[in-house]
Amino acid sequence: MTLLRTYVGGALRAARLAQSRSLREVAKSARVSLGYLSEVERGQKEPSSELLNSICDALGISLSSLMSDVALSIHSAPAPTLTVARDAA
Amino acid sequence: MTLLRTYVGGALRAARLAQSRSLREVAKSARVSLGYLSEVERGQKEPSSELLNSICDALGISLSSLMSDVALSIHSAPAPTLTVARDAA
Repeated sequence: MTLLRTYVGGALRAARLAQSRSLREVAKSARVSLGYLSEVERGQKEPSSELLNSICDALGISLSSLMSDVALSIHSAPAPTLTVARDAA
Repeated sequence: MTLLRTYVGGALRAARLAQSRSLREVAKSARVSLGYLSEVERGQKEPSSELLNSICDALGISLSSLMSDVALSIHSAPAPTLTVARDAA
């Protein structure tokens, strides 16, 4: 299933890695715990809109550009049902 | 403050109104309560990724196109701080 939090997490991680920054550094700057940020990046936690803004601020990216990346990556993702059908065949 | 849930709610409401459908009808189809959908549309509730998918399904729109609309509307929104400064002047 395509879950928004998976793509938001992936886009946040990609932005952080593009800046060669550590989870620890970005978490500190965003005032969230390292464990929390790690879970958000892996799509395991649903960040509130407020915390998402804090993380975007810490990364120096706008919410608008993050969501553009998210929309693009969802659009480019293969349909999960097709993958399942192919594996089952 | 620019909050993702405000824009997600606005985009969901716009999609529903473009189809001339009632809150009641879409809520029933998405298997959420009318009150909950109303709060989501007004940006007062943070929908989980799973419930967001249910609402998109009920509206017959893809998550990708919803997030494209969201990215565009955040990008087009006036900076809130400027509005506040103008009101205060």
